[in-house]
Amino acid sequence: MTSAPDHRWVIPVTLTPPILADNTADADRLAAALNKALGTTTMHIGLTQLKALPEQLRQWNYQARAVLFKTENDRGSLVHLTAPDATEPLCGAAVDLGTTRVVLRIIDLETGEPLGERVFDNPQATVGPDVLARIHHVDAPDGLDRLNRLIVDGLNTELNALCRTCAIRCENIHLIAVAGNTAMTHLLLGLNPRWMIREPYIPVVNQPPVMEAAELGITAGPNARVLIFPNVGSYFGGDLIAGILFCDMDRREETAILVDVGTNAEVVLGNRNWMMACAGAAGPALEGGVTRMGTTAGPGVIDRIAIEERTMQFDVHTIGDQPPRGICGSGVIDLAAALFRSGMIDIRGKLLPERCGTRFTIKKDLAHLIVVPAAMSGTGEDLCISQADLDSLVRSKAAMYTILETITGSVGMTQAELETFFVAGTFGAYIDPQSAITIGMIPDLPLSSYQSLGNSSLGGAARILTDPSGFDRIKRIRDGITYMELNVNQDFMNRFSAAKFLPHTDTARFPSVRVPGNGGRNS
Amino acid sequence: MTSAPDHRWVIPVTLTPPILADNTADADRLAAALNKALGTTTMHIGLTQLKALPEQLRQWNYQARAVLFKTENDRGSLVHLTAPDATEPLCGAAVDLGTTRVVLRIIDLETGEPLGERVFDNPQATVGPDVLARIHHVDAPDGLDRLNRLIVDGLNTELNALCRTCAIRCENIHLIAVAGNTAMTHLLLGLNPRWMIREPYIPVVNQPPVMEAAELGITAGPNARVLIFPNVGSYFGGDLIAGILFCDMDRREETAILVDVGTNAEVVLGNRNWMMACAGAAGPALEGGVTRMGTTAGPGVIDRIAIEERTMQFDVHTIGDQPPRGICGSGVIDLAAALFRSGMIDIRGKLLPERCGTRFTIKKDLAHLIVVPAAMSGTGEDLCISQADLDSLVRSKAAMYTILETITGSVGMTQAELETFFVAGTFGAYIDPQSAITIGMIPDLPLSSYQSLGNSSLGGAARILTDPSGFDRIKRIRDGITYMELNVNQDFMNRFSAAKFLPHTDTARFPSVRVPGNGGRNS
Repeated sequence: MTSAPDHRWVIPVTLTPPILADNTADADRLAAALNKALGTTTMHIGLTQLKALPEQLRQWNYQARAVLFKTENDRGSLVHLTAPDATEPLCGAAVDLGTTRVVLRIIDLETGEPLGERVFDNPQATVGPDVLARIHHVDAPDGLDRLNRLIVDGLNTELNALCRTCAIRCENIHLIAVAGNTAMTHLLLGLNPRWMIREPYIPVVNQPPVMEAAELGITAGPNARVLIFPNVGSYFGGDLIAGILFCDMDRREETAILVDVGTNAEVVLGNRNWMMACAGAAGPALEGGVTRMGTTAGPGVIDRIAIEERTMQFDVHTIGDQPPRGICGSGVIDLAAALFRSGMIDIRGKLLPERCGTRFTIKKDLAHLIVVPAAMSGTGEDLCISQADLDSLVRSKAAMYTILETITGSVGMTQAELETFFVAGTFGAYIDPQSAITIGMIPDLPLSSYQSLGNSSLGGAARILTDPSGFDRIKRIRDGITYMELNVNQDFMNRFSAAKFLPHTDTARFPSVRVPGNGGRNS
Repeated sequence: MTSAPDHRWVIPVTLTPPILADNTADADRLAAALNKALGTTTMHIGLTQLKALPEQLRQWNYQARAVLFKTENDRGSLVHLTAPDATEPLCGAAVDLGTTRVVLRIIDLETGEPLGERVFDNPQATVGPDVLARIHHVDAPDGLDRLNRLIVDGLNTELNALCRTCAIRCENIHLIAVAGNTAMTHLLLGLNPRWMIREPYIPVVNQPPVMEAAELGITAGPNARVLIFPNVGSYFGGDLIAGILFCDMDRREETAILVDVGTNAEVVLGNRNWMMACAGAAGPALEGGVTRMGTTAGPGVIDRIAIEERTMQFDVHTIGDQPPRGICGSGVIDLAAALFRSGMIDIRGKLLPERCGTRFTIKKDLAHLIVVPAAMSGTGEDLCISQADLDSLVRSKAAMYTILETITGSVGMTQAELETFFVAGTFGAYIDPQSAITIGMIPDLPLSSYQSLGNSSLGGAARILTDPSGFDRIKRIRDGITYMELNVNQDFMNRFSAAKFLPHTDTARFPSVRVPGNGGRNS
């Protein structure tokens, strides 16, 4: 789908030198050439650039390389002008502004090549771990300012470190694209997000203007521009718009679905003609989220589990092949699928003591399954999963499935009709679709339908820096999305209840899943 | 022609408060309403305003008054937002940025009413009296910076004084419109004008972007915007564009001519469909200018003279009715016309001693006419005009007439076909058209054709502040002008020579002028 861009944001220009019969001013002459190259009707050249322009053009014999950006589809801006033969790097920075983690990628704006990447914890975590805690913190004295400074300072520090790694200087960064959820982008801009969590849930801004890095306090090139991805609302942020851009949903003929499970589950269904979206923070059924289970991925954390059905042996894989210390989201889904296949949990997700054998234990009056016995664990203690964890997983997977069912149903589609199922984010990168299908979290599509996008938020931000046509698409994507409030009514609750079984009350929906005790595959 | 504007830059807004079913963000909700009111497609709301917006809208119950401006025809900017019932003045400042004098006018942006006006000498005069001297000064160390600071500081000082007179504060100024020649606007912006006076005469910029007052160092409202009128080239500046806007030439069906005689003579001929322009600094015939005669208007300066033909008595009027100390441009034209009518100069402008009688004298080998004898003058000395002054006037008037003949001829018109002849500037305000016709400086049209516009540069700048539609017209005017280089070829010189007689070699062109010695009116 993705083709090489016509041009990049760095444009070589060769002007016809002025003569008496063509005495257009320097700036207007340059603007005309830049408009032609970028396909814009207006080209903004700021005062500091105007001041330098006459000497530059004459010294460079009316040739130059220009770093451009846009403020609207038909309106360009000159960001930086350099000599035609200058060797200075002309770079951009893509930012995935996550609630938990922030990822930076530096890109060569001329070639489109990535030069380096860096991940760091969002420093606002010291104030609160999640979006809600941080939004509440803005009501504390200087709370908003503190949150703003934490992320701005963090970005500056880490960007500077990444620049060093890439052997460039911060001043070589001329364009920055930031994709994040609505709350995170508000805090980066220093905008008060307090009304986002109060009915009727209103952000300050849906489509922030392109800003100067300097007004945001970000250290970069002297006229560096910052694009903040627009949001659709408080619960559907720019990270998702970036994801749509990255997977080209807005250019595809066939209908695809994009699922991003981070703090919330966000789902977009659509094609080049229409898009329907919803986010899973809307109803009480989803409280607790769909991935609030297990620990964050890290060394020694179990990310994949299989159970050898004949021997009931657990085959555990840990990150970095360290002794197991915990289990992350994808590991929990693998585990639940394996437990279900081996008959150790029933269709309600309840542990069956007679099938679990010595792995079954009671702790604090609650049934537990020992995943890794103390002797083999990295902590010296049994690594367990409790019935409560499993119940939570069942609710989460039911919520996920119900959201998917609801959104496809809203446009009169069945889930089976989905040809492409994009899974974004860490969840998408680590999860085994087969396990997720087994427990009925996602529909029973051919495995080839599932495509993991990786960090599509970062990917979309990077796309903007490498392909100017992406700029125009963002606004079309945003404006074209119909956001569906998840109406948690009786109908939704009925669907949700039906989805609280493994894989589903209606097993016919999961023909590939063998339901234990059923004597074989469903038919 | 001029009708009341549909709306002004101050717009009252009443937003529908957000509800769950309409949860557009605050900024996007406001932008939509402002776009609708202003007829724009994009509305820029800057970061500082975004920060304040959520509390403002809720406190004001989703009502407000907005000061808007544009950056392009279809692109608006929110400049200031205030409570619906706030009593703060919302003002703008129009600036006529002359080489010699600067005029400021403060305008109430809500009513369009002028609140006060102030005139001051351009402080750059300490560096050099005219455009050329100032442009040369930029090559001195810190020359450009010095010239820039002189005018910026001057504007701040005088604007502050005018604000006090008008009982407002500088922060109440939200919009500023500046009309000046190309060199003066370059110096205000801090742009190097050195290439304007070197072939092929290239300004840095023809159409400066709308700027923030702060980036120009001008003290005004926190987000005040500055519009600098665009120029057509080095010799046709924004003051003329302002003049065209002010006299509505771009909206008229019939063809009119606009003549602005300041340092140079600038002429525009046209109507709503086309405009042709030229400026009189182009050729050697015009060196010395068309008004480099007499002194600047001031107390005691003769601005009107008549000669009682029977008694040959001089009837002298001075500014402020003070004893005469000098004679200004309009006085010189009146004098020449009167001398010609009374036969004291011939058709070449030469003093005729026998007709001048005791008023004729020789000083430093040069013929002089005593306009006011020492006994009656304010200086205690004879107030004289020399033959050299008269020769200079004849060359100037011939240049003026030749330019007018050339520009009308270029579109196949005769001067007699002109229905409206606008005369701009001080020249236009003080000159007696009858006297100018008598000496053949301007064509022999009915006196009712002549309309003095006064300070049309200031008037055009003020128009932008009172009528938003003016913004869109400026660009159309600028882009619609065909600038004609005054090609000083043999043809031009022949016309110029023919015009060096009073009123003209071809007296049939001036039927209303009685040529002395001709025995009566031409027929």
